[in-house]
Amino acid sequence: MAIILAAGKGKRMKSKLYKVLHPVCGKPMVGHVLDAVQQVQCERSVVIVGHGAEAVQAYLGDRAEYALQSEQLGTGHAIQQAESLLGTEQGTTIIICGDTPLVTPETLENIIANHESQGAAVTILTASMTDPTGYGRIIRGADGSVQKIVEQKEGTPEELAVQEINTGTYCFDNSKLFQALSQITNDNAQQEYYLTDCIKILREQGEMVAAYETFDLAESIGVNDRLALSEAEGFMRARLAKKHMLNGVTIIDPSATYIGADVVIGSDTVLYPGTILNGHTVIGEDCIIGPNTEIVDSTIGHGSTVRQSILSEAEVGAEGNIGPFAYLRPGTKLSDQVKVGDFVELKNVTVGQGSKIPHLSYVGDAVVGSGVNIGCGAITANYDGLNKAITEIGDNVFIGSNSNLIAPVRVGDGAYVVAGSTITQDVEANDMAIARQRQENKSGYAEKIRAKAKAIHDEKK
Amino acid sequence: MAIILAAGKGKRMKSKLYKVLHPVCGKPMVGHVLDAVQQVQCERSVVIVGHGAEAVQAYLGDRAEYALQSEQLGTGHAIQQAESLLGTEQGTTIIICGDTPLVTPETLENIIANHESQGAAVTILTASMTDPTGYGRIIRGADGSVQKIVEQKEGTPEELAVQEINTGTYCFDNSKLFQALSQITNDNAQQEYYLTDCIKILREQGEMVAAYETFDLAESIGVNDRLALSEAEGFMRARLAKKHMLNGVTIIDPSATYIGADVVIGSDTVLYPGTILNGHTVIGEDCIIGPNTEIVDSTIGHGSTVRQSILSEAEVGAEGNIGPFAYLRPGTKLSDQVKVGDFVELKNVTVGQGSKIPHLSYVGDAVVGSGVNIGCGAITANYDGLNKAITEIGDNVFIGSNSNLIAPVRVGDGAYVVAGSTITQDVEANDMAIARQRQENKSGYAEKIRAKAKAIHDEKK
Amino acid sequence: MAIILAAGKGKRMKSKLYKVLHPVCGKPMVGHVLDAVQQVQCERSVVIVGHGAEAVQAYLGDRAEYALQSEQLGTGHAIQQAESLLGTEQGTTIIICGDTPLVTPETLENIIANHESQGAAVTILTASMTDPTGYGRIIRGADGSVQKIVEQKEGTPEELAVQEINTGTYCFDNSKLFQALSQITNDNAQQEYYLTDCIKILREQGEMVAAYETFDLAESIGVNDRLALSEAEGFMRARLAKKHMLNGVTIIDPSATYIGADVVIGSDTVLYPGTILNGHTVIGEDCIIGPNTEIVDSTIGHGSTVRQSILSEAEVGAEGNIGPFAYLRPGTKLSDQVKVGDFVELKNVTVGQGSKIPHLSYVGDAVVGSGVNIGCGAITANYDGLNKAITEIGDNVFIGSNSNLIAPVRVGDGAYVVAGSTITQDVEANDMAIARQRQENKSGYAEKIRAKAKAIHDEKK
Repeated sequence: MAIILAAGKGKRMKSKLYKVLHPVCGKPMVGHVLDAVQQVQCERSVVIVGHGAEAVQAYLGDRAEYALQSEQLGTGHAIQQAESLLGTEQGTTIIICGDTPLVTPETLENIIANHESQGAAVTILTASMTDPTGYGRIIRGADGSVQKIVEQKEGTPEELAVQEINTGTYCFDNSKLFQALSQITNDNAQQEYYLTDCIKILREQGEMVAAYETFDLAESIGVNDRLALSEAEGFMRARLAKKHMLNGVTIIDPSATYIGADVVIGSDTVLYPGTILNGHTVIGEDCIIGPNTEIVDSTIGHGSTVRQSILSEAEVGAEGNIGPFAYLRPGTKLSDQVKVGDFVELKNVTVGQGSKIPHLSYVGDAVVGSGVNIGCGAITANYDGLNKAITEIGDNVFIGSNSNLIAPVRVGDGAYVVAGSTITQDVEANDMAIARQRQENKSGYAEKIRAKAKAIHDEKK
Repeated sequence: MAIILAAGKGKRMKSKLYKVLHPVCGKPMVGHVLDAVQQVQCERSVVIVGHGAEAVQAYLGDRAEYALQSEQLGTGHAIQQAESLLGTEQGTTIIICGDTPLVTPETLENIIANHESQGAAVTILTASMTDPTGYGRIIRGADGSVQKIVEQKEGTPEELAVQEINTGTYCFDNSKLFQALSQITNDNAQQEYYLTDCIKILREQGEMVAAYETFDLAESIGVNDRLALSEAEGFMRARLAKKHMLNGVTIIDPSATYIGADVVIGSDTVLYPGTILNGHTVIGEDCIIGPNTEIVDSTIGHGSTVRQSILSEAEVGAEGNIGPFAYLRPGTKLSDQVKVGDFVELKNVTVGQGSKIPHLSYVGDAVVGSGVNIGCGAITANYDGLNKAITEIGDNVFIGSNSNLIAPVRVGDGAYVVAGSTITQDVEANDMAIARQRQENKSGYAEKIRAKAKAIHDEKK
Repeated sequence: MAIILAAGKGKRMKSKLYKVLHPVCGKPMVGHVLDAVQQVQCERSVVIVGHGAEAVQAYLGDRAEYALQSEQLGTGHAIQQAESLLGTEQGTTIIICGDTPLVTPETLENIIANHESQGAAVTILTASMTDPTGYGRIIRGADGSVQKIVEQKEGTPEELAVQEINTGTYCFDNSKLFQALSQITNDNAQQEYYLTDCIKILREQGEMVAAYETFDLAESIGVNDRLALSEAEGFMRARLAKKHMLNGVTIIDPSATYIGADVVIGSDTVLYPGTILNGHTVIGEDCIIGPNTEIVDSTIGHGSTVRQSILSEAEVGAEGNIGPFAYLRPGTKLSDQVKVGDFVELKNVTVGQGSKIPHLSYVGDAVVGSGVNIGCGAITANYDGLNKAITEIGDNVFIGSNSNLIAPVRVGDGAYVVAGSTITQDVEANDMAIARQRQENKSGYAEKIRAKAKAIHDEKK
C-alpha cells in the first residue's frame, strides 16, 4: 500500500495551480510519485487531497483512491484520513509526499525489502547532507536503529552536527501505523498532529525503528517553491538524459536537452541542443533531432531528420526529412521518405511516400498521394471563414509555385497545376490546370513607375 | 556620495567598446553599479572617466557627475580627480569600480550602516575565497579591525594563507578620504598613486579601519576579460531568475533563460528554455513564453502564448496566441485574443480584437479591424521601392490566400477578397473583390509537360 | 613518432559507428588526437585499427599510417602490430588512445620535453583525482620516479589511497619500447598482453620510469560510453569558448554556445545563446550571431548580423543582415550590405551589393544583381519536376509581391515586375512586366458568400 500526501496548499509556489500538479519534465509531480509507487507493486494507493484538489483527482483518475483532509492539521492528521480506506489492511505501507518527484522505484523497493527483512515497525528513508540545516536529524543507536528524529529547533549541538536527515518518506507496518496514529496529540506549539510522533510512540513501545539511506540526494528534494521546482527539473532532466545516453543515444548537451519522462528514443539517434521531447513521443534509431526542435506526442521513424521544427501529434515515417522551420500540427501523417522543408505548415494531412513539400506552403485538411511535388508557396485554402473543406491530391502530381487549391477540390494522379494558378475546380488525372493571365511587357514603363514614386516621395518632404 | 571608477582601458577585453559599457544581462556594467549606488540614496554620484569615455557619459547622461582622469596614474589618482566636485562634502562616500556589476544595494546598505555605526574612517568590503591567490589579503587585528592589506607579492606565508580578500569596494569618511589622498605618493615600482595607501595613512593616524564581509562571492567579481564577463553574466542570470521564480514564475531551465535586469513577469507564467527577455519588457500572468523566443521592449497581456518567436517593441493583448515562428517588429499593436501564427511578419500595424493572421503573411504599415481573417500567404505590398503606404482593413473582413493588397488601399467592413487576387483599388463594405483568371483544364497536357522536361533532361546528359 | 590506439570496439557506446569516430565538438575523437599529436611534430603517426575500421582510414586518409590488430588481445598486443612500421626507429614515441580527445598539444610537448630531459625509458602522463577508484595508481619512489602502477584489484589500502592515476598516455624510448614488448606475456586472468607490463620490465632492467602530471583533469577522460562522450563534449566546449573569449569574442552563455574546433571568430563579435558554429566557418569582427543560429562551413563578413537562422556552405559579405528565420543553403554568395529577412530560403544564388530579399521568398539557382528589391512572397520557380533552371535578375530590379519567376528567365536591369505576376518570358531592361487580371468588385457579394458558408455549416450539423 501507499499513502501519498498531496493536501498541502503550496503557498510558497505563489500559484493558482495546486502544488503537486506542477510538472517536472512534463509530468505533474504527483504523477511521478504515483508512477514510482505503482512500479513497486503497491496494489492500493491512497492520495490525501485537500480542499480545491479536484484537479488532482481529475488528473490521476482511477489510478488511485482518495481521502479528503478538509483542514490542514498536520501530517499525522493527513494520514488519519486514510484510516477508513486502509485501517484494517495488513502489510507494509509507504508514506510519501506528492512533492518529492525524484524518489525512484529502485529506492522504494530497497527500503521495503530492508524494512521487511528487519521486521521493523517503521523504516525512515534518510539522506546525508553537507549542510543539513533545517532538516530533522536522524539519531541512530549503536545497533544502527533510529533512537529519535531531532528537529532543528530542539537539537543539541552534537545532534545538529549529524548529517543524516529524514527525507519524509517512510515504510510502516500498516497495523502499527494506525495503532500509533490513534495515540498522537496536537499538544505542541503549532497545534498540529505530527506523523513523526508515531515513530516516537512505536519506539517507546519497543518496536524497531529502522533507517534506510539513499545516496542520491535528489531523492530527498521536496518542492516548496519554484526555485526547488527548477532544481527538481534539473535533476530529473539529468537522470533521464543519462538513461538515454547509456542506451546509445548521443546527446550533445544533456543540460540543454529536455526529454519527457515517457519518451522513447532509438539508439544512434543524435539530439542537438535546445531539443524538447514531450508526451508519448517515440523517436526511431539513427535519427537526427534538433537543434531547437519541439516534439510532443509524435512518432518519428528510423533514419529521419527533424531540424529546428515543431511537431505536435504528428507521425513521420522512416527516412523523413523535416525542417528547418517546419510546423507539423495534429493529424499530420507522413509516409516514408517524405520531405517537408522550411516555412511549411501541415495540419490534418496524410502524405504519401516520397512526396515533397519543400518550402513556404500550408497544406491542411488534405490527402496527398505519393511522389507529389508541392511547389514553393502553394497553399490549400481549406477555410471559407466558417467551414473547413478537404483537398485531395493524387499520386505524382505537380503543384506549381504560389498556387491556391480552393477546397473542396480534387487533383487527379499525374496532373499538373501551373504556377500562380488558383484552382477552384477538380483537375482530372494527367490534365494540366492553368488559371493565370498572360504576361505583358510594357516597354520603358519601369521608369514611369519610378518617376511616379519619386514624385510621391518629393511631395511628402 | 559615491565615486565610480570607470577610467580603466580594459585592455584585456580586446574590444573597441569601452570596458564598463560591456553589458551584463542586457545592461552595461556601469549601469548596474550606478543603479545599486543610487538605490542606497547616494544623492551625488561621480563617475571617473578616462580619455575616449564620451560613450560612458552619453550612456549615463545626467544621472551622474563626471570627473576626467586624463592619465591612468592609479586608483588614488583617479579619486583625486573628484576632489573639485566632492572635496568639501561631509559624510560617507562609497568608492566602487564600474566593472563590478554584481554588487547589490543590500550589501551597500549594510556596509554603510556598519561603517557609520562603528565610526570608522574607512570600511573595506571583503569576501572569503578558497583560493585567494592574486588578491590583497585582509589582515585583521584581535579587535576585528583591519591592520593592513597585504598584496600577493609582499605577503609572508602566514599572511598569504588568509582567505579574506579586498574586493575593491570601500566606504570612506569623505573628509578623511581627501585629507589622506593629499598625502599619498607614487614612490613605488609602478609609479602609481594607490588608494590603498590612504588606508595605511588613516590607520597610522589612529583612525579606525573596518571591514565588512559579503558572503555572496559574486559581488567580488571585477570584469577584466570576456571570460569574467561571461561569469558575471551567469551569476546575474541566476540571481534574476531566482527573483522571478520566488515571485511565482516557472522557469523550466533557469540556466538557459535570459532575463534582462528590468523585465517584469507576472505569476504563473511559464518560461521555456532558450527564452530571452530584454529591455523594458512586461509579461503578464498565466502566459506561456518560449521556447527559443526573444522579446525586447514589448508588452504581453495576461494569458498569452508566445512560442518560438521574435518580438521587438510590440504589444500583445490578453489571451493572444503568437507563433511558432512569428516575427513582430516595432509598431505592432495587437488587441486581445489575436492569433498570429507561423511564418508571419508584422510591422507597424494595429490589429483589432479576435483577428487572425494564421500563416505565411506579411502585414506592414496597416490598420486591421476586429474579427478579420487574413488568409495564408496574403500580403500587404506597402512599398513601391521608394515610399511606404498604408493598408486599411475593416472589421470582419476575409482576405483570401496568396492575395496582395497594394497600398495605399482600403478594404471595407465585412468585405471579401478572393484568394489569389491582387487588390489595387478600394473595396467597399460587404463587397467581394476578385482579380484572377478563370481556371482552364487542358486534357492530358501534363504528359506533354513531362515529355518536354524529359527531353531537356536527356539533352543535358 | 606516435601510436594511436583505435582498435577498441566501444561496446558500451551501443553504436553502429566505430567508437573513435564519434565526434566531440563536431570532430571525430581520433581526429582530435591526431591533431594534437601532429602539432608536436610527430613526423610519423601510426593508428592501430581493428576489424571493421575502414571508416577510420577513410576519415583520416593519408594523414596517418595504419596497422591492423585483427584480434583484441590487449594494449601490448595492439602496440606490437606497429613493430613492422616503427620497430627500427630511434627516438621518442607517444602512445595515446584514440578516445582521449581532450589531450592538448601543450601537454604532449611538456611530457616529451620532460621525458627527454630526464633520459627516461618511459614517462607516464598522470593526473590526480579526488576519487581515483578504478584507475591504476602511480606509486612513486623517494626520487619521484615511478616504482609501479597498481591496479584497483591488487592494491593495498595505502596504495589505493594514492590519488595520482595513470591516464593511459605515455612517452617511450622507441627501441626500449619494442625490446620490452618482445618480453611481455599473456599469463594473467584476462589472457591479454598489457602495455603496462613493459613498464614493469623496463623498471626491472634499471631503466628510469618517469611520470608527468597534468593539472587539467579533462585530459584524462577516455570516452567509453555516451555519458562520457557528453562530458568530453562539455569540457571541449568550455575550452574552445574560453579561447575565443580571451581573444575578444563576447559569448553570452558559453555553456549554451557550440563552437566547432576549427571555427575562426573575429573580436567584438557577440554570440547569443543556442548558436552552433561548425566546420570551417569563419566569422568576421563586430558581428552579432544568434540566438539559435546554426552556421556550418560558411563565411560571414565584418559587421554582419545573423539571427535565428541556418546557414550551410554560404558566404555573407560585410554588413549583411540575415534573419531572423532565414535559411541559406549551399552555394549562397551574398555581396556586402545584403539583407535577407524572415522566412527566406536561398540556394545556389549570387546576390549583388545592397540587394534586399526581406520576407517569405525562395530564390534558388539564380543570379541577382545589386540594388534589387525582391518583394514579399516572390519566388523563383526553378524546377519543372525534373530539371533545375536559372533565373537572372539584373541590377536595380523591383520584383513585386507574390510573383513567380518561371526559370529559365531573365529580368533586365531596372525592370519592374508587378505584384502577383507569373513571369514566363524575359523582361528587358527598364520594362514593366505584368501578368494579372484586373480587379472587379461585386457589390454586396460578400454577404452571399457568408450565407452560402452558413448554409454548408448548418447542413453539416
